[in-house]
Amino acid sequence: MTDSLDIYLNTVNQGDPERIGVAMHRLMAELYPICRSITGEGVRETLRILQRLIPLEIHEVPTGTPVFDWTVPKEWNIRDAYILDGQGKRVVDFKKSNLHVISYSQPVHKKMSLDELRKHLVSLPEHPDWIPYRTSYYNENWGFCLSHRQLEAMHDDEYEVCIDSSLTDGHLTYGEYLIQGQSQDEILISCHICHPSLCNDNLSGIALATQLAAQLASQGKPRYSYRFLFIPGTIGSITWLALNEAQAGRIRHGLVVTCVGDGGQFTYKQSRRGDAEIDRAAIHVLKHSGAAWTMQEFFPYGYDERQYCSPGFDLPVGCLMRSPHGSFPEYHTSADNLDFVRPEFLEETLHRYLDVVEILEHNRTYINLNPKCEPQLGKRGLYQAIGGDSEAAKKQLAMLWVLNLSDGKHSLLDIAAKAACQFGIIRSVAEVLVQHGLLREFVEV
Amino acid sequence: MTDSLDIYLNTVNQGDPERIGVAMHRLMAELYPICRSITGEGVRETLRILQRLIPLEIHEVPTGTPVFDWTVPKEWNIRDAYILDGQGKRVVDFKKSNLHVISYSQPVHKKMSLDELRKHLVSLPEHPDWIPYRTSYYNENWGFCLSHRQLEAMHDDEYEVCIDSSLTDGHLTYGEYLIQGQSQDEILISCHICHPSLCNDNLSGIALATQLAAQLASQGKPRYSYRFLFIPGTIGSITWLALNEAQAGRIRHGLVVTCVGDGGQFTYKQSRRGDAEIDRAAIHVLKHSGAAWTMQEFFPYGYDERQYCSPGFDLPVGCLMRSPHGSFPEYHTSADNLDFVRPEFLEETLHRYLDVVEILEHNRTYINLNPKCEPQLGKRGLYQAIGGDSEAAKKQLAMLWVLNLSDGKHSLLDIAAKAACQFGIIRSVAEVLVQHGLLREFVEV
Amino acid sequence: MTDSLDIYLNTVNQGDPERIGVAMHRLMAELYPICRSITGEGVRETLRILQRLIPLEIHEVPTGTPVFDWTVPKEWNIRDAYILDGQGKRVVDFKKSNLHVISYSQPVHKKMSLDELRKHLVSLPEHPDWIPYRTSYYNENWGFCLSHRQLEAMHDDEYEVCIDSSLTDGHLTYGEYLIQGQSQDEILISCHICHPSLCNDNLSGIALATQLAAQLASQGKPRYSYRFLFIPGTIGSITWLALNEAQAGRIRHGLVVTCVGDGGQFTYKQSRRGDAEIDRAAIHVLKHSGAAWTMQEFFPYGYDERQYCSPGFDLPVGCLMRSPHGSFPEYHTSADNLDFVRPEFLEETLHRYLDVVEILEHNRTYINLNPKCEPQLGKRGLYQAIGGDSEAAKKQLAMLWVLNLSDGKHSLLDIAAKAACQFGIIRSVAEVLVQHGLLREFVEV
Repeated sequence: MTDSLDIYLNTVNQGDPERIGVAMHRLMAELYPICRSITGEGVRETLRILQRLIPLEIHEVPTGTPVFDWTVPKEWNIRDAYILDGQGKRVVDFKKSNLHVISYSQPVHKKMSLDELRKHLVSLPEHPDWIPYRTSYYNENWGFCLSHRQLEAMHDDEYEVCIDSSLTDGHLTYGEYLIQGQSQDEILISCHICHPSLCNDNLSGIALATQLAAQLASQGKPRYSYRFLFIPGTIGSITWLALNEAQAGRIRHGLVVTCVGDGGQFTYKQSRRGDAEIDRAAIHVLKHSGAAWTMQEFFPYGYDERQYCSPGFDLPVGCLMRSPHGSFPEYHTSADNLDFVRPEFLEETLHRYLDVVEILEHNRTYINLNPKCEPQLGKRGLYQAIGGDSEAAKKQLAMLWVLNLSDGKHSLLDIAAKAACQFGIIRSVAEVLVQHGLLREFVEV
Repeated sequence: MTDSLDIYLNTVNQGDPERIGVAMHRLMAELYPICRSITGEGVRETLRILQRLIPLEIHEVPTGTPVFDWTVPKEWNIRDAYILDGQGKRVVDFKKSNLHVISYSQPVHKKMSLDELRKHLVSLPEHPDWIPYRTSYYNENWGFCLSHRQLEAMHDDEYEVCIDSSLTDGHLTYGEYLIQGQSQDEILISCHICHPSLCNDNLSGIALATQLAAQLASQGKPRYSYRFLFIPGTIGSITWLALNEAQAGRIRHGLVVTCVGDGGQFTYKQSRRGDAEIDRAAIHVLKHSGAAWTMQEFFPYGYDERQYCSPGFDLPVGCLMRSPHGSFPEYHTSADNLDFVRPEFLEETLHRYLDVVEILEHNRTYINLNPKCEPQLGKRGLYQAIGGDSEAAKKQLAMLWVLNLSDGKHSLLDIAAKAACQFGIIRSVAEVLVQHGLLREFVEV
Repeated sequence: MTDSLDIYLNTVNQGDPERIGVAMHRLMAELYPICRSITGEGVRETLRILQRLIPLEIHEVPTGTPVFDWTVPKEWNIRDAYILDGQGKRVVDFKKSNLHVISYSQPVHKKMSLDELRKHLVSLPEHPDWIPYRTSYYNENWGFCLSHRQLEAMHDDEYEVCIDSSLTDGHLTYGEYLIQGQSQDEILISCHICHPSLCNDNLSGIALATQLAAQLASQGKPRYSYRFLFIPGTIGSITWLALNEAQAGRIRHGLVVTCVGDGGQFTYKQSRRGDAEIDRAAIHVLKHSGAAWTMQEFFPYGYDERQYCSPGFDLPVGCLMRSPHGSFPEYHTSADNLDFVRPEFLEETLHRYLDVVEILEHNRTYINLNPKCEPQLGKRGLYQAIGGDSEAAKKQLAMLWVLNLSDGKHSLLDIAAKAACQFGIIRSVAEVLVQHGLLREFVEV
């Protein structure tokens, strides 16, 4: 990452604090009505909208393609679905909410009694106004989700049910965007795109990843290459890893982006390694964010980090989110809507992502070229170089920390942790020390 | 350990919860009146009673045999002992409690004043009805223990004291029982048999070790060989180690059994290594027992673990007990009697030992044969294989943990610890995964 | 350290508890009026007084000598300084307190208005009666420090300012004293001598180091050689390290002595290594001192440990003090005077230093010569050997700890930490065990 990006980030920071948040929220609102699933037209339509903002490449992988232990499934598309009561009234209507149909439901069109139909209905008695979200990807099945009030209003009657869907050979569709950096080493940013009208999980992730990509791409060449994946959950990451197995080792750091728009506190779920640089960078950012936060050790459940962190890959991929999946009642219901996520929270989360990127871009290990006793900072004007502002004392101590620990064994991030000092200050004084010939980068041979 | 043992254990678990506890308590009651010491007929009689239950081998090691820095002592036997007052009344009578004589007292028969006698009397003023337990193994001495009330009732008089004991060349006697397993690697279960009428320390240990041996022997060949030692404290373990030095290295795990029948909470004292498999197994069992428990780091005091954990052996031998020695007022007094230990506590402790055995028998390290991304569990019917019961979610997560961490570096016990999940669940899902060809055992070469 | 020193230390411990404290305080009182700086006659006069007590060698390093990144500065001397008001009254007078002149002030003699003069005046509004202490070593400057009440009493007037100082080629002066021990390995005791009339920082350090040197020298040859440095802060340690670079590796343990006379609780600042023997010894002493104490992890600020712990040396040098610099309001003001430090605190700190010395002198690693099972302590009379006093049980357990952990991997200090037992007890039982042929010293080959 070059100085120009830094300047840009400064501009962003000084700009209207909600401008970018509002833009992300607007993108979510545009994507909200589309009926997405792990395959089908909804995914394509979504990716085409993102192409207006970033030059996403759309990949199509044919049904039946073997991907490790899995097979790319049939493509699912749906045109309409409803339940008619005896009077011909639509008591459940897919056109009102795409959550009404269990995702990957097989086509059905028949009449049946309420008792027969009940086996195919799902509601949430504890939240009688909310429609639950359910899927049946790898079981042949069909069904409807509806609010408990809708269910209670139904009575003994003959109902006509129709799901006008198709399950046919087709493709699994995903989007990919690589920002070429100075190095072939990559930072992976991955989000899932298979959820229909659900906002925190995971339109918020799609919006944030898109915005982050746009910002990084608008700058000079960064240090790392950045790979953005917009993929269906589970089968998408498995497919990408199967088709790109040889290159997966280039991924040096990675984050799965999900649940980034609610008002809950930040949560970082560690990679399987636990002490990877991405883990330490994310924790550093949250520690210095000034707000409460939570850390989760890795567990093999959740989102696509399950695949990236499978033992055959063990990639350093964590998950930086706000409220974790399953921890908020709105999760996987119609209440995870455009009101549940707010522009200011999206914006704040984006800043935490940019803070992590700043660390990864600038984390280096240096060698103190005057390791015996302290160098004389005064004669070099270094006390002036760091400025006489209110942070001067902090910067002066940071300079001593960097000099003391730059022995080839401590990166700037390690030093920031030992000094309990923001990475940005450690980094800026290290740059001053390099300019004054007191440090050089340590390169392992 | 084969499946048949598992079935047996299940039977035990489903049977009358107190049946085995009552049997152990009955055995203690039978052994209670016998006057045991570190040598002598009391030990032989005790071991002969145990031979009715398990095919114990009785070893006799001659007096004078050098055993490392020690020498097998003379054999001590006692027929009678008493103190007569001026009227010829037995004010202290060995036949009423064998605790009345300091163990290893030399023979004595003479008359003396109360003042002279006092130097040979021990009582407990703070518990005036209890008789203390004292020994004088390696000092030539004699004496009586009596309740403080007995002492207070004695007045200036001429007393006739008699200890009809003998200290002669003879043998040190101990019992040994090896259950041959599939491997030469051994699990050591050691208890001391040198205490006279004292229950928690250590008739409870004798009863539990006997019952455990009987249960293990009634099954098919276990994975490990099990060596049960019934030995006098200190000199017994030193003797066994001296005579079996070359084979001591076969001991892969071990437990000293003592104080296992009182109502106190469980305590695990670590082996000297602290992180041996036995340590982690015992801690796992207590952590998941649902009750409060305590861990003690190793210290070079206590029971025979002192010898097994001496630096020249450093065997992985811990101590799984309830209230530790010295922590309950009844310790080493006549109040450590058949009422102080209860069948239900013995039974509960036996189950903790069986839980540890289950872990050691089944703890293996596996290799995930599908390490790249998760395998597709659904198509293999694995969600059904683990059952749809209330534990289904726990088992499904356990399956993901086993797959994620089966990289040859984590045993099932390691995985159970990381997943904070009972070993039994981890083990059962691992077996299912093996059956489905997703895991194979990892064998270090 | 031989037994004779131990006897001496015992004498000290049993003597008048304040005798040595009073002597140290008296030495401070004698040194108090002298105007010290990083160079100059004040330093020489100070060292000459110390020579009356210990055979200090006085080194003179010429101005201009390059020492790593630094250069030995000009020598600064001052005869008089004052501010006269319009009536010729000395409103500020160097003869009343040498803190009144900023150290290293250039000579000046001129008349000026109060407004012009203000730029050269420093006071402490929050402590209106205290004179602050300021320096300007490496900037050409001049100025006066005065109490805020003095400042407030000044009014618009023409003032005559005079600083009769000189900055000329000369020498940097420091004192060094080596007590030759049995080994070339050294323990470094370093204190700074550049502060004028300031007591806790650091006349207390000078007095303590001198007393410690006198005591150690009055004994037989210690195990280690002890190097005492009396040097100006920063430039002094840099100079010593530059001139003695080849021998610095002999320093096996070290302490910087400062702020050792106030009534605050003890503080130990770790060496950069954090787990060096000196760190563990100092922590052990404070843990067993019976009083509250604090540990600070190393940070690259403070006193000369900054230089000793620079990455090119990384010497195991910590700092054992009472209230750390900057943590008490009197720090670097005229209130850090002879009342602020008390004989009893100096005395107590000296004892902590002697406790650390005792550990370093006696910390050895042994091999248990009877490693298989416990040796029979009774037959060797070892229970008697350790005495039947109130500490007998503690000593007996200590003996078992030493035997159990003397495997060549645990030093006595390690054993003391594991056993949570005072080093002195561990050491004394180890000596008994050596005498009885049960231990021998472990020498790595």
